[in-house]
Amino acid sequence: MHVELRSDTFTLPTQAMREAMFAAPLGDDVFGEDPSVNALEQKVAEMFGMEAALFCVSGTQTNQIAMSVHLSKGQEVICDELSHIYLYEGGGIMANAGASVKLLKGDLGRLTRAQIEAAISPDDIHACESKLVSLENTVNKGGGSVYSSESLQEISDFCRHINIPLHLDGARIFNAMAVTGQTPKQFGAWFDSISVCLSKGLGAPVGSVLLGSHAFIKQARRVRKRLGGGWRQAGLLAAAGIYALDQHVTRLKEDHARAKEIALICAGLPWVDSILPVTTNIVIVQLKEGIRSVDQVAELKSKGIFCAPFGPQYIRFVTHLNFDDAALSAFKAQIIQ
Amino acid sequence: MHVELRSDTFTLPTQAMREAMFAAPLGDDVFGEDPSVNALEQKVAEMFGMEAALFCVSGTQTNQIAMSVHLSKGQEVICDELSHIYLYEGGGIMANAGASVKLLKGDLGRLTRAQIEAAISPDDIHACESKLVSLENTVNKGGGSVYSSESLQEISDFCRHINIPLHLDGARIFNAMAVTGQTPKQFGAWFDSISVCLSKGLGAPVGSVLLGSHAFIKQARRVRKRLGGGWRQAGLLAAAGIYALDQHVTRLKEDHARAKEIALICAGLPWVDSILPVTTNIVIVQLKEGIRSVDQVAELKSKGIFCAPFGPQYIRFVTHLNFDDAALSAFKAQIIQ
Amino acid sequence: MHVELRSDTFTLPTQAMREAMFAAPLGDDVFGEDPSVNALEQKVAEMFGMEAALFCVSGTQTNQIAMSVHLSKGQEVICDELSHIYLYEGGGIMANAGASVKLLKGDLGRLTRAQIEAAISPDDIHACESKLVSLENTVNKGGGSVYSSESLQEISDFCRHINIPLHLDGARIFNAMAVTGQTPKQFGAWFDSISVCLSKGLGAPVGSVLLGSHAFIKQARRVRKRLGGGWRQAGLLAAAGIYALDQHVTRLKEDHARAKEIALICAGLPWVDSILPVTTNIVIVQLKEGIRSVDQVAELKSKGIFCAPFGPQYIRFVTHLNFDDAALSAFKAQIIQ
Amino acid sequence: MHVELRSDTFTLPTQAMREAMFAAPLGDDVFGEDPSVNALEQKVAEMFGMEAALFCVSGTQTNQIAMSVHLSKGQEVICDELSHIYLYEGGGIMANAGASVKLLKGDLGRLTRAQIEAAISPDDIHACESKLVSLENTVNKGGGSVYSSESLQEISDFCRHINIPLHLDGARIFNAMAVTGQTPKQFGAWFDSISVCLSKGLGAPVGSVLLGSHAFIKQARRVRKRLGGGWRQAGLLAAAGIYALDQHVTRLKEDHARAKEIALICAGLPWVDSILPVTTNIVIVQLKEGIRSVDQVAELKSKGIFCAPFGPQYIRFVTHLNFDDAALSAFKAQIIQ
Repeated sequence: MHVELRSDTFTLPTQAMREAMFAAPLGDDVFGEDPSVNALEQKVAEMFGMEAALFCVSGTQTNQIAMSVHLSKGQEVICDELSHIYLYEGGGIMANAGASVKLLKGDLGRLTRAQIEAAISPDDIHACESKLVSLENTVNKGGGSVYSSESLQEISDFCRHINIPLHLDGARIFNAMAVTGQTPKQFGAWFDSISVCLSKGLGAPVGSVLLGSHAFIKQARRVRKRLGGGWRQAGLLAAAGIYALDQHVTRLKEDHARAKEIALICAGLPWVDSILPVTTNIVIVQLKEGIRSVDQVAELKSKGIFCAPFGPQYIRFVTHLNFDDAALSAFKAQIIQ
Repeated sequence: MHVELRSDTFTLPTQAMREAMFAAPLGDDVFGEDPSVNALEQKVAEMFGMEAALFCVSGTQTNQIAMSVHLSKGQEVICDELSHIYLYEGGGIMANAGASVKLLKGDLGRLTRAQIEAAISPDDIHACESKLVSLENTVNKGGGSVYSSESLQEISDFCRHINIPLHLDGARIFNAMAVTGQTPKQFGAWFDSISVCLSKGLGAPVGSVLLGSHAFIKQARRVRKRLGGGWRQAGLLAAAGIYALDQHVTRLKEDHARAKEIALICAGLPWVDSILPVTTNIVIVQLKEGIRSVDQVAELKSKGIFCAPFGPQYIRFVTHLNFDDAALSAFKAQIIQ
Repeated sequence: MHVELRSDTFTLPTQAMREAMFAAPLGDDVFGEDPSVNALEQKVAEMFGMEAALFCVSGTQTNQIAMSVHLSKGQEVICDELSHIYLYEGGGIMANAGASVKLLKGDLGRLTRAQIEAAISPDDIHACESKLVSLENTVNKGGGSVYSSESLQEISDFCRHINIPLHLDGARIFNAMAVTGQTPKQFGAWFDSISVCLSKGLGAPVGSVLLGSHAFIKQARRVRKRLGGGWRQAGLLAAAGIYALDQHVTRLKEDHARAKEIALICAGLPWVDSILPVTTNIVIVQLKEGIRSVDQVAELKSKGIFCAPFGPQYIRFVTHLNFDDAALSAFKAQIIQ
Repeated sequence: MHVELRSDTFTLPTQAMREAMFAAPLGDDVFGEDPSVNALEQKVAEMFGMEAALFCVSGTQTNQIAMSVHLSKGQEVICDELSHIYLYEGGGIMANAGASVKLLKGDLGRLTRAQIEAAISPDDIHACESKLVSLENTVNKGGGSVYSSESLQEISDFCRHINIPLHLDGARIFNAMAVTGQTPKQFGAWFDSISVCLSKGLGAPVGSVLLGSHAFIKQARRVRKRLGGGWRQAGLLAAAGIYALDQHVTRLKEDHARAKEIALICAGLPWVDSILPVTTNIVIVQLKEGIRSVDQVAELKSKGIFCAPFGPQYIRFVTHLNFDDAALSAFKAQIIQ
């Protein structure tokens, strides 16, 4: 059996989701006339208590648009060195916004207010102006780690105090909420802009939503246009997003439970050195010295288990909508073959 | 009756196209595993006789990716001053590629080899290096004008001779072929990179295809990623594109015939000064002096006819898949109310 | 005799200017501690009635810094198609600021308020935001043409009215004032930022001054730093600039008179088709059909007269500090050999 | 007595250097006609055994030009996290080249071949392409640390092997050679491009030289132009550079000896926690916990000793041409007041 654990982006739309897409009313979204896109944008904005929303093709695009709206040349974003925006978006911060990064070492990718405060550049022409703080939650490269409300409140207060916007890469923000009990409106209050992905744990085929003020989203539409992200009858995909938000949020706890099972299984394997704490749907396994991630991934693939190399000595498993109990059983059986 | 003539991007997927989408096999295209996307890319590459293809979210994105792959800072693209890449892509050439434009005045947006030859920069550090020629065909702002094969051959020969790549913004390239009888393979031979839109005359809801060599498309995938244009289960939209290419190409002549009818009707109207030559599915009408385009567009809207202002003194009508004979009759009746 | 008329940038510092440089007190300007630089900046700011000034290495740098401070990605500067900032600064607007250009056709490079008003982009995400108007005075490529006070007042009023800053490329602004009797303070009132060159007609070896508000110059220092334009003991050059402003302004009328003489001489030559109106120190000669500028420049060089090709059919002569009556006599004698 | 130790950029030209400048033959360097500039460029190119050279206004500019020639958008430079190119050039890598940084932790800012090898990006569109390695020698923020010939040879061999260019920020490269006995030609053989500063330890008022192949320097001239770094009669400054290279290289050992004296004096002070190893002319002192660098710098300033804060807990002293034995005595006397 093919056991897919490379990413939660591999989920396929369910029959019910396809039917919702099939029935969606459509229009030209570049002209703002797609009713399904408009409904999705309104739904997510209201959910998070933010003024406006923009439906985009990917989480990389929503993040990159936020970088481009918040930052100009000679400025920098303060973020963790494990951040997706720095590591996995093709150099977009520099190429799209012309801006720099100040990289901090957090705890499993999570920063503290004190770290951020110490990182703000002095008023010196040699340095970049610190003009944005960006957090990721859950932190992909931190093993799906989650911020506490206290920490977020402190960071948000500090950013407001020094008048620097705070962005959230919330690619898996509903996974975080499933663990902490935080609400979307809390995030809407803490952050100035938020990127929410519909195509990861939520299981929609394509799409992310960018949230912010009316003025921010107005500029975001301009940036999306020049990145080529304006789309026509995108309502087909928006309908899938609406369906995902209605049907696939509460089930995320199942993914987390299965991730913990995977960690337990892996803990006993001879090639495993250690495992990052598992909080949500991501399991990052450190390999014993001398074992290379690409080799271990290939070995598991030969047993029907698909996972991802995550640097030279780590591999990553991600649970999701299409990884059910049968798949978990298969995983258990096949990994010890 | 609502008569929609603002753009051929307003077309809605037909029932049959929706069914094709519903049935499409899917996968994660960021990992290159969406079978429908792969099928579309292979189909279009073969159709044009080019090595490789990349399915993207919009024609602006395929054009902008081409600009970014072909051009660097300090370099320029030579194009007509009416070009979509310069006028309607939000300053992307400059923002995405950091490159400049050398704007020429063609005949209804069409350049000649002689114009291009005269425009190549000398080897002088004050000037930008001329590193790309970009043509548009049909030319949107030129009233849907079309290049002859002779002209394209001459320009292509010249660009090969001086070793500068030649890009085609083929947003409506199938409209051009419907008029001239040129074939996709001819375009594949003339150009180094081509952008083909599926969501305009062809009636797919979303998407464009970028064509080029293997090396070009490899770099294009990088650029697409940092623009945020990588998508997951995009096969839903690719399936619509395949359907459109199979079913909606031969019918484009109908759109052209109806565009000529519209021009005839307009020619007799008191507020019309003149009409650009109509060759394909675009009708650009110059208004009598003293009449502003926004006012005329509003007036027509009040009669149920939707068209677009095109600069202060011009308005544009575009025929398409959803503009049938009944709509043409309604247009005729309503415009003279 | 070598008759140098290629540019007024070829002037060599006089003995008296060298002595002023030799005696200049110096310091580290990156730390703001060069007394000669500070004196120059204060002198020019006061002269033009502007808040602050920044001494830079070239007029291209002062212009490019202004572009980068005023403009961001997705925005555009409105300027004449003959502008130095577009034609001769290596694509810097696009490469440094990521911004676009909207190119207008003025009268010998001079724009009118009406042209500018018509060029402002609508609020449309397809277009670039119009965020800067830039004038050049005198217009190099317009044959040294000069703006009237009425025209500048109208344009300035309009830009203030719509809240868009107005930049002046004043590479030869003292030449303009020598003709019109306008004062530096008038320019300081009309414009939001001004670039003044010391190394052209004024005869300093290196350097230009950028003028603007305190806030503008603060940002300009940042941009200068990242362009690598921060310099150390630049007071040597600043002292030359101070000397030039004190000693070489009133004599510019001599250059203009000699330029008119050159035009008169050229008017009678068999290879001359026509001559652009001569107002200041630039003479642009259109060659008879069939004569190429590079050939004519080579021919004149063989007679000891150095001038510059200015496009394929024009050549340019520029008078300056080192072109005296003896040089004019030599020009007259040698050109008809 | 004012004891200046903030930077070796504070040196003032000696009387003899001023006389060399005064006597320099000049021309317009934008046209390549300044004999003193040409002589300097030829002299430095020959000294390092490289094909070509370009005289620029600052080390930031020579570094930034190198970044822009070597790198494009979506690419990255591998360098130490203490690098001047990343920390002190105003975000130029991102703003000028649109490129990213991969920041490694070296030993006092010095990287090893193994670190570099491990940092090369895989062929993955999520990552930036690794297209440049940049070393700094001496490392300013590493306390003036110096690379061994063995290490440089290994790194150079590796970069050649994988076909990635190797850049040297040699702002203080003559200080490194004074310690190790390496020769300029060795550096010319190890590196593909080198930035050499004349205005630091060598004591020229302004200027740096960029070295590379003919093709590299040809592109560098283009980039310099669009950064506004082209200058006219720059020979005045070039003459100072020639003088500095002839007269001020052998004396650098004196600066190193005095830096060691400073370190010895500081080692006994109550507010000093530790001192980075002193190899060349830089002394970096870590302050006892609870003492802030800005406060300590202010305190020393009140005693007539000028030094620079170097992050929140470090201060930096730099010896130079104008810091002689009398100044050292004054330092000793005043610091313990």
